[in-house]
Amino acid sequence: MIVVLKPGRDAQEEREVSRLLRDAAGVRVTATTWKPTGEELLVCDRGVAADLVDQLTAMSAVERVVPSTGTMRLAGRSFSATDRIVDVAGVAIGGQGFVVAAGPCAVESAEQLEDAATAVTLSAARLLRGGAYKPRTSPYSFQGLGVRGLEMLAAQRKRTGLPVVTEVMSPADVELVAGFADMLQIGTRNMQNFPLLHEVGASGKPVLLKRGMAATIEEWLLAAEHILRHGDGNVVLCERGIRTFEPLTRFTLDLSAVPAVKRLSHLPVIVDPSHGTGHQYLVKPLALAAAAVGADGLLIDVHATPSAALCDGQQALSGAQFDELMGALTPVLAAVGRPLAAAPEATRCR
Amino acid sequence: MIVVLKPGRDAQEEREVSRLLRDAAGVRVTATTWKPTGEELLVCDRGVAADLVDQLTAMSAVERVVPSTGTMRLAGRSFSATDRIVDVAGVAIGGQGFVVAAGPCAVESAEQLEDAATAVTLSAARLLRGGAYKPRTSPYSFQGLGVRGLEMLAAQRKRTGLPVVTEVMSPADVELVAGFADMLQIGTRNMQNFPLLHEVGASGKPVLLKRGMAATIEEWLLAAEHILRHGDGNVVLCERGIRTFEPLTRFTLDLSAVPAVKRLSHLPVIVDPSHGTGHQYLVKPLALAAAAVGADGLLIDVHATPSAALCDGQQALSGAQFDELMGALTPVLAAVGRPLAAAPEATRCR
Amino acid sequence: MIVVLKPGRDAQEEREVSRLLRDAAGVRVTATTWKPTGEELLVCDRGVAADLVDQLTAMSAVERVVPSTGTMRLAGRSFSATDRIVDVAGVAIGGQGFVVAAGPCAVESAEQLEDAATAVTLSAARLLRGGAYKPRTSPYSFQGLGVRGLEMLAAQRKRTGLPVVTEVMSPADVELVAGFADMLQIGTRNMQNFPLLHEVGASGKPVLLKRGMAATIEEWLLAAEHILRHGDGNVVLCERGIRTFEPLTRFTLDLSAVPAVKRLSHLPVIVDPSHGTGHQYLVKPLALAAAAVGADGLLIDVHATPSAALCDGQQALSGAQFDELMGALTPVLAAVGRPLAAAPEATRCR
Amino acid sequence: MIVVLKPGRDAQEEREVSRLLRDAAGVRVTATTWKPTGEELLVCDRGVAADLVDQLTAMSAVERVVPSTGTMRLAGRSFSATDRIVDVAGVAIGGQGFVVAAGPCAVESAEQLEDAATAVTLSAARLLRGGAYKPRTSPYSFQGLGVRGLEMLAAQRKRTGLPVVTEVMSPADVELVAGFADMLQIGTRNMQNFPLLHEVGASGKPVLLKRGMAATIEEWLLAAEHILRHGDGNVVLCERGIRTFEPLTRFTLDLSAVPAVKRLSHLPVIVDPSHGTGHQYLVKPLALAAAAVGADGLLIDVHATPSAALCDGQQALSGAQFDELMGALTPVLAAVGRPLAAAPEATRCR
Repeated sequence: MIVVLKPGRDAQEEREVSRLLRDAAGVRVTATTWKPTGEELLVCDRGVAADLVDQLTAMSAVERVVPSTGTMRLAGRSFSATDRIVDVAGVAIGGQGFVVAAGPCAVESAEQLEDAATAVTLSAARLLRGGAYKPRTSPYSFQGLGVRGLEMLAAQRKRTGLPVVTEVMSPADVELVAGFADMLQIGTRNMQNFPLLHEVGASGKPVLLKRGMAATIEEWLLAAEHILRHGDGNVVLCERGIRTFEPLTRFTLDLSAVPAVKRLSHLPVIVDPSHGTGHQYLVKPLALAAAAVGADGLLIDVHATPSAALCDGQQALSGAQFDELMGALTPVLAAVGRPLAAAPEATRCR
Repeated sequence: MIVVLKPGRDAQEEREVSRLLRDAAGVRVTATTWKPTGEELLVCDRGVAADLVDQLTAMSAVERVVPSTGTMRLAGRSFSATDRIVDVAGVAIGGQGFVVAAGPCAVESAEQLEDAATAVTLSAARLLRGGAYKPRTSPYSFQGLGVRGLEMLAAQRKRTGLPVVTEVMSPADVELVAGFADMLQIGTRNMQNFPLLHEVGASGKPVLLKRGMAATIEEWLLAAEHILRHGDGNVVLCERGIRTFEPLTRFTLDLSAVPAVKRLSHLPVIVDPSHGTGHQYLVKPLALAAAAVGADGLLIDVHATPSAALCDGQQALSGAQFDELMGALTPVLAAVGRPLAAAPEATRCR
Repeated sequence: MIVVLKPGRDAQEEREVSRLLRDAAGVRVTATTWKPTGEELLVCDRGVAADLVDQLTAMSAVERVVPSTGTMRLAGRSFSATDRIVDVAGVAIGGQGFVVAAGPCAVESAEQLEDAATAVTLSAARLLRGGAYKPRTSPYSFQGLGVRGLEMLAAQRKRTGLPVVTEVMSPADVELVAGFADMLQIGTRNMQNFPLLHEVGASGKPVLLKRGMAATIEEWLLAAEHILRHGDGNVVLCERGIRTFEPLTRFTLDLSAVPAVKRLSHLPVIVDPSHGTGHQYLVKPLALAAAAVGADGLLIDVHATPSAALCDGQQALSGAQFDELMGALTPVLAAVGRPLAAAPEATRCR
Repeated sequence: MIVVLKPGRDAQEEREVSRLLRDAAGVRVTATTWKPTGEELLVCDRGVAADLVDQLTAMSAVERVVPSTGTMRLAGRSFSATDRIVDVAGVAIGGQGFVVAAGPCAVESAEQLEDAATAVTLSAARLLRGGAYKPRTSPYSFQGLGVRGLEMLAAQRKRTGLPVVTEVMSPADVELVAGFADMLQIGTRNMQNFPLLHEVGASGKPVLLKRGMAATIEEWLLAAEHILRHGDGNVVLCERGIRTFEPLTRFTLDLSAVPAVKRLSHLPVIVDPSHGTGHQYLVKPLALAAAAVGADGLLIDVHATPSAALCDGQQALSGAQFDELMGALTPVLAAVGRPLAAAPEATRCR
């Protein structure tokens, strides 16, 4: 339950609201501001009886009382009926347009990134993705270029005009990464890394929150809630496959999660068919399926030479394959009434 | 590995082929006829060394030697590169056209079935589905109408012209059910009921083989192999969701399985988003995704009054909702270059 | 809910009970006899309001009204508080004694079976297991010896005095297999093969019901309920591992299921660590764990020459390894206050 | 593969070894010291051909060349055949003795912790566990007392003599938490939080690494490898249940993981049946099973008043229940030849 407070309310009246919630109903309350609207909120850890809702609603300090969607508060549909649109340096995710983010899984060198960035820009991707800090199962695998990778990403942003999304793995790195990136990615292994969620929430940057590979939809939305409580409402969810018994695919891409999330939450959802399947030949059909199921966008691994990639090459598309995917995507999007998102101003004026 | 024998070969030469396989290579061999082409085959339980393949290929009784696609033999791509088209009383599954089978999960009464059959016929379904024998987790749930249900299905086939697909649960019932149905359905709980697979294979009817809810894609294709060995090649696969940890959906619909199967096998694949999600509001988006991902058709629960259904009502579409789904489906199919399948002659002349 | 009827009740009064349930409460009722006690029951598909329970309890035809344990009826703790003991030709499963069934996964030859039977008898196994009909994922794997295998099992029973447990796969084979076996096994792939469950229930033989590899505990107990409704109460459950994402073991043995089942149901539970892990080196530690967790027995693959086994050799113990397991088992059983079950009379007099 | 270097080797010869690995074989190498023995190592990202192994072995700077156990290097059996014993402030985990760590899931107050600490000390627990920083799915749940909780833990250590194990969630907190704790716990949600793993490795404290709820055994051991590369070899693994489709238990406790890990690795493994099952009534039987399967210890939730716990009360044992568990545990441990671990000196002298 959320109590939305009236602007210009009396301090004494506000204290009375808090007192009622805490003392009468035993509710724990967190005060926060919902930055998208500037509303001041008392977020409650649970709901209260109907007559207390009535009593609260009648109080002069109270604008309205919002019941909860399941365990969600700020992320829930009951708090915001309208779909949230997240602005990433001029690219709108969650509105009418469909947004494709593409690029290499890992930044490996300036040349490799430039080649991929050129390819994805030409094929109408709207965001450049690439990892400078790579969470790797084995400590003996390539761990990413770190700051040098961030600098290469910034250089390609400048050259192509595409905003950059990149992963951050540690709370201590958030400020650094936010200095280079337009959107911070939380990887599947960190979906419940709560100190990291709080830090990216407070960074002021939009956040791309990948679903944990064994996370339920409810846990995923509660992870978003952790970010929203510390942030300004700019969270985009990314379905990337869950762990099942099926060995033929790397993960099982759960496309039902897209309409399920949209029913429970106002947040945008995109789909990563590259990690979600783990195989090049599955990326295009699952990308088309994601568009048809109602996703707001895609995250695609693109590498100029997939066979030479230092990370996840077996799932990366070449530039030509990516272009083919984008060509096939357009009519499917038209069939479900959504165009590809417009390019950001910086790109358009090129 | 499969050794395809030459027509008109010499008996002595054929014996020599068998001897080589068994004695020299220790391979166990099953002789069978592939009815779609009339070819006579020696299906081997494993492959042999390259020089023995050469030796076999050179023998006068041998037409060609087919390597295996993984563990598959008759179901594998290496045995048949061209997509198999399964004819169900005039409706072609697996060709260019996209086939929708629809109807109630369980036949409950003549009226209920008639209402559903009318609705699905009007909205361009090409097959009528409905269960007369229902596998139910609890013995205290409705178990189906049995023969009376089959009679009702046959009556609606006559009235609407739509071929009928219905489940058979016991080898002893196969002959009976095949007397009423145009296609026999093997349910998810029976995917590895091998005596039943052999019986439906031998029935002469096309078979719709649902994926076991915990079956790997390989196990599913091997279950098809069990049918193919006893039958005439007419197997259609149906992805219907797998069991995972996610509680919000009844199962997790594995759409990646569609292109994965098509790479390994020549058999058609359709998708059941009703059972695969378990929720009415998820059926339409997942049906569109199934079309986009490359499925050959759909299996949809339709009930005139879903809230009154005796079985799985929470996932059934009303006639109006089904019509809306079909309306949305057409442009998505156009986008991927596939029309809805033509109606069988019987329906067309109405 | 179950209504237990009084012996010697008036027919008119019984009709009144049924009328009340059906007409007043809308409950569907199945009349059955619980053979272990001879009680006549009305098994209801759901419960009724407390005042109707009171009204029913007061009726002269009613002995008592039993509420349900979740969805269970006959299998539930509320129906029978005392642990059920299942007698398999003189071997008691579910009482104080701990019962080990052992033998080869598949009967391959008279010699192979004799060697294994000798080994397991000497090491104090109390039941001989072995498969004559083998459900195999691939149609090109060894499918079992059929009737010849049954005859070999019967010969070893005669020789060793050990009762025999063997799998039946098809309803049509139940009578045949029951003619040779002392206990009928339902394999994991057939846990929800309902026609088969009904047939083994009606056979008069005790049934060993393996858990489906993707079955919840509730579904497993409802499968037992299917057997109990047609049978005489002699069902033993067998935990044999469930399917998960972990690739190092063939299945994940779910030992929590043992105390969980014992809380919900009065039926005995044994554990199969051979199939449940798929690896020889894991069988002994998991067998000891099964004893410690409160299982009523074990099912162990034993083969004189595991490396030569036609089926699942990588999980079979040699005779010496089985003897070592039994040696290690005894003190663990003593620690939890349970002895190994006594041998049946036939063996004891040897 | 690991190349162990000779003490007192020549710098020129060492360079030659590196050159061979890098230039001739294309291997990436990490130099590190294995603190338990003081050996200096070159850890390679993969193996090399047999003749190069011979060449390396013959070099004067090389002590020996260790092949890899699968993907493991430092954590693998091939690197160390003897079981590792981890010393936690005088308590040895991994040796002959069996170690029980117990205490509340979350530290809630000085009184609550004191009550629990008293109970577990009296019943022969050897470590006190309790969370001051709690990773919680919902931001509206109790998040732990932070530093105040650490101070309460330190006070109880002083009073009872039991070393303290507590969770750390953020790299920035490692130094702080290590100032109060004797062992740092990495929770299931952080098993692949690599910056955190590196930080706890470098802290000098022993680490308790819980298995990720969807982690394979191989991924778990590779997470340990991340810690070992930065640390001094003191890692204890903790199996705590994996996520499956079974809803009756909170997780599925994977006891097969214990002997599986012991085969692959020399690290100790303990089991958490409290989180692993999520239900009070399952803790004791699964604890006994863990002892029988070969675990080196247990982690148990104990709370003076489970029903009043702020976190996971439904799985906590009361002091009396914990004492009963310990009573039942002793004979099972005796049956498998292991005593309870001796108390640390501090406790013994009380």
